[in-house]
Amino acid sequence: MDERPTLETIRQAHQHIQGYVHRTPVLTCTTIDQRVGAQLFFKCENFQKSGSFKFRGASRAVLLLDGDQAARGVLTHSSGNYAAALALAAHNRGIPAYIVMPSNAPAVKKEAVKNYGGEITFSEPTMSAREAMAAEVQQRTGATLIHTFNDYRNISGYGTAALELLEEVPDLDIIITPTGGGGLLSGTLIAAKGLKPDVQVIGAEPAGADDAYRSWRAGKLIPLERADTIADGLRTSLGERTFPIIKDLVDGIALTSEEAIREAMQLHFERMKIVVEPSAAVPLAVLLEQEVDVTGRRVGIILSGGNVDLMNKLA
Amino acid sequence: MDERPTLETIRQAHQHIQGYVHRTPVLTCTTIDQRVGAQLFFKCENFQKSGSFKFRGASRAVLLLDGDQAARGVLTHSSGNYAAALALAAHNRGIPAYIVMPSNAPAVKKEAVKNYGGEITFSEPTMSAREAMAAEVQQRTGATLIHTFNDYRNISGYGTAALELLEEVPDLDIIITPTGGGGLLSGTLIAAKGLKPDVQVIGAEPAGADDAYRSWRAGKLIPLERADTIADGLRTSLGERTFPIIKDLVDGIALTSEEAIREAMQLHFERMKIVVEPSAAVPLAVLLEQEVDVTGRRVGIILSGGNVDLMNKLA
Repeated sequence: MDERPTLETIRQAHQHIQGYVHRTPVLTCTTIDQRVGAQLFFKCENFQKSGSFKFRGASRAVLLLDGDQAARGVLTHSSGNYAAALALAAHNRGIPAYIVMPSNAPAVKKEAVKNYGGEITFSEPTMSAREAMAAEVQQRTGATLIHTFNDYRNISGYGTAALELLEEVPDLDIIITPTGGGGLLSGTLIAAKGLKPDVQVIGAEPAGADDAYRSWRAGKLIPLERADTIADGLRTSLGERTFPIIKDLVDGIALTSEEAIREAMQLHFERMKIVVEPSAAVPLAVLLEQEVDVTGRRVGIILSGGNVDLMNKLA
Repeated sequence: MDERPTLETIRQAHQHIQGYVHRTPVLTCTTIDQRVGAQLFFKCENFQKSGSFKFRGASRAVLLLDGDQAARGVLTHSSGNYAAALALAAHNRGIPAYIVMPSNAPAVKKEAVKNYGGEITFSEPTMSAREAMAAEVQQRTGATLIHTFNDYRNISGYGTAALELLEEVPDLDIIITPTGGGGLLSGTLIAAKGLKPDVQVIGAEPAGADDAYRSWRAGKLIPLERADTIADGLRTSLGERTFPIIKDLVDGIALTSEEAIREAMQLHFERMKIVVEPSAAVPLAVLLEQEVDVTGRRVGIILSGGNVDLMNKLA
């Protein structure tokens, strides 16, 4: 599985993970359409099991393990959605999941991993500490390490959301995804351009974590030095497996402000009555600021996840 | 239209309002099912136009006006969902809507009425001041006054949600609705018992606004003296048109605590990723506190609305 995925790989992944993942609905909203002057189709991965599209990749990765590997379990380091997704995918196969989480991860995220039976090891909240701790756990357990986005198995799984979206709404002009490590954007690019070469695919990124934008403009990988955004799922840099796919296939990376991200979340909540996490609101934020011209077009948006700790804020 | 509605009336209303109202989806959630030990089917009126089931009744009432009446417009007094619902229904027919709102109504509710083109007159926030102001506006405009729940046109419209729910999930054992003025419960009772005489129908009510419970137990209308609940849609008393229907047909009224309402909202948000208002969470709250025995049963719940001012609380 160390070859760059193709449309065929993504179709295989889709077959493979069916029966484990939800086929999520595609929702529309007249008020938001009027606001942006386009027809928007929202693929609701916030309704996906474990609360995000990450479960598609984690399920694919876990199902690809052979019997020996599976018996030793899987391992990742993640403070966010991949942790819960991998714990649930491992639980579904009945194998151990070892999750390295930063000690300052939100309680709700730790709870989710525990509920799915994942074994948490805490590390200091730096990338190097997380990686060192993951290496230690791997040595102890022999578990297979799976990187949350820089992994072709995951990318194939992530691409299945766009596959379903285009099956349901074939005549899209544009597809927009949030962009953090680039896994969702990479899978979407391969699926969408494979199925419909003339569809435009755009990555949406917070201006406060704009490494994908800068890397795309420069034609080389420029890692993020500092992230400053409420979109907690997008504070990571592109990796050496996602950047080449994006560089080859993407039609553009659009940036957005924090203010627009908040307004987009509000529209999702108040107008669509659905819960999205800040990262998932970034594509709509880009449209509110007219960073992509979508006038009169049919636009698919992948709502990446819905894991936001609302109630703590409401208490 | 001054006769008590029947299943036939509700079927006519359903024909009448089709093309104006959303046929809302019925959602399920494995985690919540496991928690309460039953299979729950949520009829999502939080996704209804204007954000609540009230739009079904308002649409029916507006469509029943003859040409002369329609030309003079419609009028109601409401601080909540009916205000927006009637404004939108009138807008759809191209007629004026006059809405008397208490001066302390939330900004977001006033905004909704204005967005739909409704004309707001403010009154002091007491029931007698609202009624006096409504009489004044009626005299000035000649508009038809429509009471939010104590009106058979509305009750027929409200019953169409249960009609759709039972079309989609015919083998329900129990249906539970929130209970405020009793309009939704009345319409649901007539539709559900008409279609399926052995289905149980239960009203769910906050213990802090328990007039329906006390009226049902006493066999006579006992108005609320004081309401103390976050479920702002349920702070009203049953009326002389809803109480007789409920008295005749209901299988029980179940009470719940404020704590359980909050927990139920949290489960809807965090597990189903949908936005519900506190009133809509009251049926699940009743089940969390085991006030109705649903073990192993198939239970329909009408999620009455999704108009909650989340973002102000998040700011």
